[in-house]
Amino acid sequence: MIIILKKGSGKSDAEPILQQIREQGLQPLYMPGEEKIVIGALGDERILANLQLDSIDCVERVIPILKPYKLANREFKDRRSTVQVADVVFGETKIPIIAGPCSVESEEQILDVARAVKRSGASMLRGGAYKPRTSPYAFQGLEDEGLRLLDVARRETGLPIVTEVLSEHDVDKIAAMTDMFQIGARNMQNFQLLKAVGATGVPVLLKRGPAASMCDLLMAAEYVMSADNPNVVLCERGIKSFFSDTRNTLDLSIVPLLQNETHLPVIVDPSHGTGVRELIPPMALAAVAAGADGVMIEVHPDPEHALSDGFQQLTPEAFDELIAKMRAVAAAIGRSI
Amino acid sequence: MIIILKKGSGKSDAEPILQQIREQGLQPLYMPGEEKIVIGALGDERILANLQLDSIDCVERVIPILKPYKLANREFKDRRSTVQVADVVFGETKIPIIAGPCSVESEEQILDVARAVKRSGASMLRGGAYKPRTSPYAFQGLEDEGLRLLDVARRETGLPIVTEVLSEHDVDKIAAMTDMFQIGARNMQNFQLLKAVGATGVPVLLKRGPAASMCDLLMAAEYVMSADNPNVVLCERGIKSFFSDTRNTLDLSIVPLLQNETHLPVIVDPSHGTGVRELIPPMALAAVAAGADGVMIEVHPDPEHALSDGFQQLTPEAFDELIAKMRAVAAAIGRSI
Amino acid sequence: MIIILKKGSGKSDAEPILQQIREQGLQPLYMPGEEKIVIGALGDERILANLQLDSIDCVERVIPILKPYKLANREFKDRRSTVQVADVVFGETKIPIIAGPCSVESEEQILDVARAVKRSGASMLRGGAYKPRTSPYAFQGLEDEGLRLLDVARRETGLPIVTEVLSEHDVDKIAAMTDMFQIGARNMQNFQLLKAVGATGVPVLLKRGPAASMCDLLMAAEYVMSADNPNVVLCERGIKSFFSDTRNTLDLSIVPLLQNETHLPVIVDPSHGTGVRELIPPMALAAVAAGADGVMIEVHPDPEHALSDGFQQLTPEAFDELIAKMRAVAAAIGRSI
Amino acid sequence: MIIILKKGSGKSDAEPILQQIREQGLQPLYMPGEEKIVIGALGDERILANLQLDSIDCVERVIPILKPYKLANREFKDRRSTVQVADVVFGETKIPIIAGPCSVESEEQILDVARAVKRSGASMLRGGAYKPRTSPYAFQGLEDEGLRLLDVARRETGLPIVTEVLSEHDVDKIAAMTDMFQIGARNMQNFQLLKAVGATGVPVLLKRGPAASMCDLLMAAEYVMSADNPNVVLCERGIKSFFSDTRNTLDLSIVPLLQNETHLPVIVDPSHGTGVRELIPPMALAAVAAGADGVMIEVHPDPEHALSDGFQQLTPEAFDELIAKMRAVAAAIGRSI
Repeated sequence: MIIILKKGSGKSDAEPILQQIREQGLQPLYMPGEEKIVIGALGDERILANLQLDSIDCVERVIPILKPYKLANREFKDRRSTVQVADVVFGETKIPIIAGPCSVESEEQILDVARAVKRSGASMLRGGAYKPRTSPYAFQGLEDEGLRLLDVARRETGLPIVTEVLSEHDVDKIAAMTDMFQIGARNMQNFQLLKAVGATGVPVLLKRGPAASMCDLLMAAEYVMSADNPNVVLCERGIKSFFSDTRNTLDLSIVPLLQNETHLPVIVDPSHGTGVRELIPPMALAAVAAGADGVMIEVHPDPEHALSDGFQQLTPEAFDELIAKMRAVAAAIGRSI
Repeated sequence: MIIILKKGSGKSDAEPILQQIREQGLQPLYMPGEEKIVIGALGDERILANLQLDSIDCVERVIPILKPYKLANREFKDRRSTVQVADVVFGETKIPIIAGPCSVESEEQILDVARAVKRSGASMLRGGAYKPRTSPYAFQGLEDEGLRLLDVARRETGLPIVTEVLSEHDVDKIAAMTDMFQIGARNMQNFQLLKAVGATGVPVLLKRGPAASMCDLLMAAEYVMSADNPNVVLCERGIKSFFSDTRNTLDLSIVPLLQNETHLPVIVDPSHGTGVRELIPPMALAAVAAGADGVMIEVHPDPEHALSDGFQQLTPEAFDELIAKMRAVAAAIGRSI
Repeated sequence: MIIILKKGSGKSDAEPILQQIREQGLQPLYMPGEEKIVIGALGDERILANLQLDSIDCVERVIPILKPYKLANREFKDRRSTVQVADVVFGETKIPIIAGPCSVESEEQILDVARAVKRSGASMLRGGAYKPRTSPYAFQGLEDEGLRLLDVARRETGLPIVTEVLSEHDVDKIAAMTDMFQIGARNMQNFQLLKAVGATGVPVLLKRGPAASMCDLLMAAEYVMSADNPNVVLCERGIKSFFSDTRNTLDLSIVPLLQNETHLPVIVDPSHGTGVRELIPPMALAAVAAGADGVMIEVHPDPEHALSDGFQQLTPEAFDELIAKMRAVAAAIGRSI
Repeated sequence: MIIILKKGSGKSDAEPILQQIREQGLQPLYMPGEEKIVIGALGDERILANLQLDSIDCVERVIPILKPYKLANREFKDRRSTVQVADVVFGETKIPIIAGPCSVESEEQILDVARAVKRSGASMLRGGAYKPRTSPYAFQGLEDEGLRLLDVARRETGLPIVTEVLSEHDVDKIAAMTDMFQIGARNMQNFQLLKAVGATGVPVLLKRGPAASMCDLLMAAEYVMSADNPNVVLCERGIKSFFSDTRNTLDLSIVPLLQNETHLPVIVDPSHGTGVRELIPPMALAAVAAGADGVMIEVHPDPEHALSDGFQQLTPEAFDELIAKMRAVAAAIGRSI
């Protein structure tokens, strides 16, 4: 840890800080520069985090050398992790494709989609039973009935299921049914929910919040992992920027960036990432080319009459065409679908 | 509602949309322009929201004329609302000041602060018992013991209390003790939590999420209000922007903007809004000058040794100086503290 | 054009607006809704832009139906445009790769790079002679000597040249030498410069500004095109967002979005777009997969000793490896390099 | 300067860096931590900027201790600077108010405004003769005739003039007439223009670009100052954020932040900062309360018929009312207008 003191600070300002570092068992370093005093702390600086040295008046800046995340940190684990969900594996050469509707709407709808995406080559089925909607007046999902229908579709097709959990109250119920939890972007820092899904041991698809830095996302993963659940898959789904011609700004660069920083698999959701039907295919291809460990795409048998987010769902036919192209791009970079 | 069709669309594309509008009991309007067809729907367009017309392939854009929020909408209520918390009123000429530490740390600490801020003229006491922390390894609050200590401070000083709720599980317990719930920025779209605090009827301080538009914030308020709890106070506390020299970018313009758009009171939190101790006084003064209906400021007896966010807490002495200046600015614009 | 009046406005507020629309030769439409009055104007609404109807007190919002750009607008031109730079064509199935150093530093350096990137398969050479640097104390480019060296490299390799112009004073001098102007991101709205390069007729590589919307970018192109220079190639190079782990946020979605909106070719610069050497290859591959009409990559014989931006330049060896992969991805989507 | 090496780097990676630091006459410091090696450089690190140490493969991060701006840096100058424009002084207790139309449109218009704002208590007159417009089809200003009319208004009222310069070609002509140059937000990093206005010695009002960090803004000031022109006044006028209900997001916190960082005066433009007429008064009051050294407000005799930006201009009557309130707020914080 590097601590820069404000201009005009002197040895006497530095002394208590050096003392605190020493007391924590780290080696303090006093570096009086020409204009400012710099203090270093050698050793496992994470011990110092609770000292809140940035609260001290003479301190201009505190610069950590080490990252605050440990379990998610690639520096502590040489190999990339794999996360297994039923028979699907994230983090290997083969890239799982998750497909399905925004919301489960009826038995016919979910069965139609499930059969179609399975036929096209998807590995997992997605579908919202509990829906987080910006408006309290909008369709809130079929809830328990939605869960039941997802199970029907799984039995019929064999595709493992991922579905979103919104409430701590529902964690046990959903854990008993789903193959993987989805934590939505709006709940990425709902820490109680993260702890609760962590405790179940069920794999978690953790979506990046719209204003989350890489560190925020990895610290959210750390909440799940520190509850003894290492089965976390990260998902880029677009961030908020000044740019409003797309629903969100899909930040594909974070895929390789995360892969340097963490051993966890990283997938991409171009449906939410763009919010524009025409942009889903090019961005799904780009995600594969950028090295994503999975892609999640919304598919609906009749998007024009979907109960939610129809504008960002593909028809089964469009999905079928897209997955063929994704397969070609994957092959071009030495992977497969 | 205005619906713009993509270039090249014709009468036959418009017809089914006109039909849908008619079926909902609204009056459809067909406006073929030189380059594009525009469709209008006259009447209470909120009925159309569930039609998801933006999912239709030939539709370029759907432009609502009316706002999706009703209960929070100023257009439906002529007068500004007031929200009463014990004997404190938000939304009148007198501007309540909420002060207190980031976290409740001990009986001595919270009593010290409570007495000091009361003496200086604060109207309410804040203090976190349950803390949402980015890191699972950081201090998570005193929890139930923190609640108890807040109650002790209230009995001693008479100041009403506001404290944050993180979990649906804690809603009833906290409702039984607190005068006002705080919903933190990270939970602004934790809709289950919003419904739960709505159901209690206890007043709610709703903080704007770091990537929340005005509409997002008012729809979150709508979740609380549609659970029959009209006692919502909105709080600007900074948004995420590219600018990283402050912790957040305090968006003061939203104060008068919200006051045009909603009848709910709007307050400002310059502590989180800046994350820099030196910036809290000027931005607190600016908040008053901009017309805020309240200001919330973090105060700690010894910020350099605070267990959380010490860098954005004022000493009681600095707070005392600040509140005197705020009083002068309030008087300059015809208000009081 | 749709004009929404503020709640409470009446027929008498609408009348003068309807009159103005009529006077411009458009057909006005009066639509009194349940809560608000809406006014429509049928015809070429661009005539109305100068009326500044949004300045009128009773007007809540003005919503244009048509786009303000004409020459760049795809709606007015059915086919995609191609832009020819010497023998290189942008906008066809074959994807040109532009490569070269951030700055021209010496004859040896530019010749080394030029030969290497040509050998690997690049189509054009880039290199800065005049450099826009954030700091006045940083290396500002070799200026005229840099231009001369670019010419030497071009003669030697046959690769056409693109180089940045910073000043109206240099436009003629550079026009006489270069095959293509580069307008940098910081100058995207330097309208005098846009007009000046437009007047030369030399093709222009127009980089998107870090806070430019799609409309801002296309209006900047319109400045060049309305000076009778249709030879504009657009370049996405990253925008400013809250995310600071990369230098910029590469907004790849704008590639297909622009291709729907304009007939102009769109290329991507992953060097500036990420500012991180390790991220250039995955994002270059993603750009190709997303359908970019070109990719521009910084290559330096010895990035560790570059005079500018070494951290985002590839070695010739790394570039050679990358271009082979790009070729494979291009083939996977039916294009070539 | 602190240099952090990537994990896995060893003494042999550090050695050449230590050597380079030594060669520049600074004292290198080798700090092998538990997980990473950290290198320090004691002395005037600005010498190291040109070494581009962040280009070296084993370097994870380079952290400057000192700021790259010198002339604008408050650390090198104890007192706040004042900038004198004719008889108006920026940077003292008295706060100058600049007022006038977006564009000069006619002699009658500019004289009307000039007389009115002078009567109300404005200190300077603003008015655009050369206008940077997003669209090439929009009104581009009266140009030379606009300059002449500004001069007429100055003679009539005695108010000093500030007007925008767009082109290096116009610098001498405008310098001969104006009391102060305005560099608009879009040109904040038009470095050639900054050097050119710097060379004239005429005071410069430098507006912050919509995506400019504090450092970017101060480095732009440094371009002017290093051309031997210390007369720079900085202007906050709103940044781009995800928030689109206002034209820009007025970042008032940067006012006190800049005042800690630089000795230059800092003013605020709430007209561009909000782009909404109703928001100008509250944000002008907030700017004064936040400690701004000046406020610039757009005033037009008939905003509904303005040729540009009518939606963000006040009538002379509204301005008169506002300045009275600003005077009261200024008095409340011990300043005057």
